[in-house]
Amino acid sequence: MLHLVIADSELELVPKSIVEHPAVVNYAKKRKKRPEEVILEGSYHHSALKKLEDGERRGRPDIVHICLLNALESIANREGKLRVYVHTRNDEVIYVNPETRLPRNYNRFLGLMESLFKNRVVPKDLALLRLEEKTLGELVEEINPDGVFVMHEEGKLVKPRAFGEVLAGLENPVVIVGGFPHGDFLSEVPWEKISIYESSLMAWIVINEVLVNFEANRTFL
Amino acid sequence: MLHLVIADSELELVPKSIVEHPAVVNYAKKRKKRPEEVILEGSYHHSALKKLEDGERRGRPDIVHICLLNALESIANREGKLRVYVHTRNDEVIYVNPETRLPRNYNRFLGLMESLFKNRVVPKDLALLRLEEKTLGELVEEINPDGVFVMHEEGKLVKPRAFGEVLAGLENPVVIVGGFPHGDFLSEVPWEKISIYESSLMAWIVINEVLVNFEANRTFL
Repeated sequence: MLHLVIADSELELVPKSIVEHPAVVNYAKKRKKRPEEVILEGSYHHSALKKLEDGERRGRPDIVHICLLNALESIANREGKLRVYVHTRNDEVIYVNPETRLPRNYNRFLGLMESLFKNRVVPKDLALLRLEEKTLGELVEEINPDGVFVMHEEGKLVKPRAFGEVLAGLENPVVIVGGFPHGDFLSEVPWEKISIYESSLMAWIVINEVLVNFEANRTFL
Repeated sequence: MLHLVIADSELELVPKSIVEHPAVVNYAKKRKKRPEEVILEGSYHHSALKKLEDGERRGRPDIVHICLLNALESIANREGKLRVYVHTRNDEVIYVNPETRLPRNYNRFLGLMESLFKNRVVPKDLALLRLEEKTLGELVEEINPDGVFVMHEEGKLVKPRAFGEVLAGLENPVVIVGGFPHGDFLSEVPWEKISIYESSLMAWIVINEVLVNFEANRTFL
């Protein structure tokens, strides 16, 4: 089983310090929610983000959405060889049931995330998504892997195909991909760092490269 | 150069026959546009879609968005080895400049498409996206490829890696992927049909498999 962790994702509710900002208040009103119940979204809350520490990278649920659409529909997941976790900048972990069929529409995805942050589990009966307070280190320990790799611009340069071979040779590897637009991990990442390309790639592209090359080295393809 | 065509995409303006439907009128009003200027979107215009032929598959710009985000950010494109085209159900072709940095936010993407359908080219100065009336057959002829492959559930089953090798051995292959949620091509597709998996896959997953396996067989990786 390959364990994919989208780490330090910029996915969070609007922080308390900006719930009264007009950009947030108006957005929440339009969506018929309370300001503290909506997911921070950089495109919509741009002016409010300027008031926040790390504001230039925060509010990027779109990255999580695209990463999940690629991972959950992948052949590796269809074959039952993948587990996906979303770890956030506030040290929450979302456990994603591999059967989850995520909304393709971004606004519906935001609604689902809002419901998840409110109820800690969605949908109530099936619990396809479950949110817990947990650090990246605690998650990795819990998975108890036989290899942990952090995808990182400054890591050891390995061709994607060769990296797929390494993963396919392990029983229970963890691959950590940053769920943020730029900059570095906020969490400590004391594991082997791997780079698959000479310059930086979007998180979802790294995921595609990892999953496709992992699959191609497994007997199920 | 690999030429990727997302064909018979369910990307169109709201058809005339439903511009007066309340679901469309209300949506357009919210977005401060005229009903005939907005892109048909299945999640928002669901009740109006029921009045349309093929309504159960139409209004899926989200598929085009995800496919383009994966293709344009891919290593193949970063290396200058890819050209991407979006062909629509109404026989329009969008030529996508490989330098295009597409909006990650879905609502902004919809705005960009609306502008493209209105002005036929966006942005006016750079012309990163350009729309022309053209059939799939005419587009393929224009590209003048040395191989044309249609990704199709009922095609010849080939492992993704082996298919990547075939593509890498050609100078100018065209790969056609259906930009619709289910069903078959509307256009005639009188070319070799290839299936890379035993059951159907989302369009963007097929694109990921094709691009990653193509890259891995080229000298640039």
